[in-house]
Amino acid sequence: MSKAIEMHEDWRGKIETVVRADILDPEVFKVAYTPGVAEPCLEIQRDIERGYDLTRRWNTVAVVTDGTAVLGLGDIGPEAAMPVMEGKCALFKAFGGVDAIPLCVRSKDSEEIARTIALLAGSFGGINLEDIAAPRCFEIEARLKELCDIPIFHDDQHGTAVVTLAGLINALKLTGRDKKTAKILISGAGAAGCAIAELLFMDGFENITMTNSRGIITRGKDYGSEQLNNLAAKTNLANISGGLAEGIVGMDIFIGVSAPGILTPEMVANMAKNPIIFACANPVPEIDPAAAIAAGAAVVATGGPNFPNQINNVAAFPGIFRGALDARAKDITREMNIAAAYAIAGLVANDELNAEYIIPSALDMRVPKAVAEAVYDAARIDFGVK
Amino acid sequence: MSKAIEMHEDWRGKIETVVRADILDPEVFKVAYTPGVAEPCLEIQRDIERGYDLTRRWNTVAVVTDGTAVLGLGDIGPEAAMPVMEGKCALFKAFGGVDAIPLCVRSKDSEEIARTIALLAGSFGGINLEDIAAPRCFEIEARLKELCDIPIFHDDQHGTAVVTLAGLINALKLTGRDKKTAKILISGAGAAGCAIAELLFMDGFENITMTNSRGIITRGKDYGSEQLNNLAAKTNLANISGGLAEGIVGMDIFIGVSAPGILTPEMVANMAKNPIIFACANPVPEIDPAAAIAAGAAVVATGGPNFPNQINNVAAFPGIFRGALDARAKDITREMNIAAAYAIAGLVANDELNAEYIIPSALDMRVPKAVAEAVYDAARIDFGVK
Repeated sequence: MSKAIEMHEDWRGKIETVVRADILDPEVFKVAYTPGVAEPCLEIQRDIERGYDLTRRWNTVAVVTDGTAVLGLGDIGPEAAMPVMEGKCALFKAFGGVDAIPLCVRSKDSEEIARTIALLAGSFGGINLEDIAAPRCFEIEARLKELCDIPIFHDDQHGTAVVTLAGLINALKLTGRDKKTAKILISGAGAAGCAIAELLFMDGFENITMTNSRGIITRGKDYGSEQLNNLAAKTNLANISGGLAEGIVGMDIFIGVSAPGILTPEMVANMAKNPIIFACANPVPEIDPAAAIAAGAAVVATGGPNFPNQINNVAAFPGIFRGALDARAKDITREMNIAAAYAIAGLVANDELNAEYIIPSALDMRVPKAVAEAVYDAARIDFGVK
Repeated sequence: MSKAIEMHEDWRGKIETVVRADILDPEVFKVAYTPGVAEPCLEIQRDIERGYDLTRRWNTVAVVTDGTAVLGLGDIGPEAAMPVMEGKCALFKAFGGVDAIPLCVRSKDSEEIARTIALLAGSFGGINLEDIAAPRCFEIEARLKELCDIPIFHDDQHGTAVVTLAGLINALKLTGRDKKTAKILISGAGAAGCAIAELLFMDGFENITMTNSRGIITRGKDYGSEQLNNLAAKTNLANISGGLAEGIVGMDIFIGVSAPGILTPEMVANMAKNPIIFACANPVPEIDPAAAIAAGAAVVATGGPNFPNQINNVAAFPGIFRGALDARAKDITREMNIAAAYAIAGLVANDELNAEYIIPSALDMRVPKAVAEAVYDAARIDFGVK
């Protein structure tokens, strides 16, 4: 039996529910349950917002999947996704102090999934969507934002985009590039690739080209999703055609959220001088970092823990939800995500910044704190509190 | 501010989620999350039952309400029901070691509620329905039993019935009565009253009459629910008509799950000699226990903690789910419920049994253990394991 199976059998669950009230004391029992509990119930009936003071709602996030895009494993089903969801919930608590509950939905219908979660939204302070295949993840996220007045966040899109932007901010600084002129190629036009492109545009990047397994995303083509069609209209400014080999020529930055091994040393050699390579396919990157360096890369990041500069969503989601919950934000906006990215990047001091350290470690506990504070502030600006 | 509000504000939630894996250790991180977590995922994809070994599913119960029949408060809405659901979840853990998750559903449509919960059933080991108004609670329970292969239990029906039967077993013993001949009047024909009647019939009681606010339940009438129509056909053997005052005459046992103060001392005086009175309306019973004793009652039980003999569901649900989860039962059957009732009753030794002690205290920790063992054994018989 493998070590991972053995450890999971030992844990029998990576999270559990514990009791915060001393309910075995008969006097406490009468308050925490009948008859005393009637009072907080009536108080919330009068004002639903009081639920955030009188129950755990203020700190509770549902981690929701349909099990269709789990890690790199694909559609393995909702039950089989549970070990990842529990891991996510454990990270939510360990890094963000957030109580997270895993919910695996037995449906592949966007409207049905959205409706199921929306009906439960009064139980939670926020909803984190996870490992849902595109384009369903876009549909479910958009529909939930319509139906709910609590923050909705699809981590595979926005968490990835935030941490990628954080890494890029420092990689640009390190290589003396400007976001307005840097030429970026994003390999992968699924949930993560599209979200990265959107967030980079939002932050002021201007020159982005995207590719997927069929080639360069080109304006005027119909890609079957509103999201990608919109991106097609504003990417690929040079209007080139072909595949990754054609698209990569002269690019300053490669961002891969695609497939193992597809970026060759020859392609890196055809990029601009001292290129930036983010090869984030997991667990095997688009190019081996050593090969990329040998081919001329100035800085390389990957999605895994075995190389320097890991682009790991753990840097984003716990702090983002901590900040959003504390601000009692009704949504997680692009501004909040950008604030999170700059907070992560800002933890690498100028005199520490080097090719092997453009982003703090996933286990650096300064990260969720800095992200939470930045997101809290951005939320209060967004929602007009400040 | 009241003490109950103050204590709830201090708790800010009566339950929380904690982490069981030492996920801040980089080596553990790699197993509990990517990339190691892929292995337990694939193992569950091959065999869904392995989820019970590799995740918390084996110990997790959803506590589900629509907020329509909360305590005696009625339809206060799903968010306002949360303090009760959290209290319930706390009791599940404190008494049964069960991890319970509160889910408040924003719907009053039986099919929609059942479908919502059924879509999530792969995340849980069982489902406890709570504080849902009749007849919707019957419909939702029946539909969920069709849709799911995990235990479904509506506590307001079956928990109440189990603890009532437990008390009755000892009250019969104390007053020298036999269940086959004892004449029982059940006041209240909602979820609890119907479930009590069904469980008593199942256990061998034969002579039951029911009343609701409109009078004695009589065969041949249409009560608008299949459940009550079925009971109408087999209750009220004497085929009498009228209200509680008429129905109570000559009865050995009064079981009230109805309204405060509706049982008068005159009615008690009109019952058989040394009658048994279970006045379980909450928080104010159908008759004050002292008044019932003065009118001739041999033994009185209530639903509250301020008198002897509290009929409290806490005696039932934690142990029932503990036993059902440990047996990995696919359902909670009547046989399991009856086993639970006899286990509770059996904790009162013959030489301890008296009019003020027919049922163990709600906080007696022997109770959930005895119930869990009895239910476990009954489950294994029911499902053919033994």
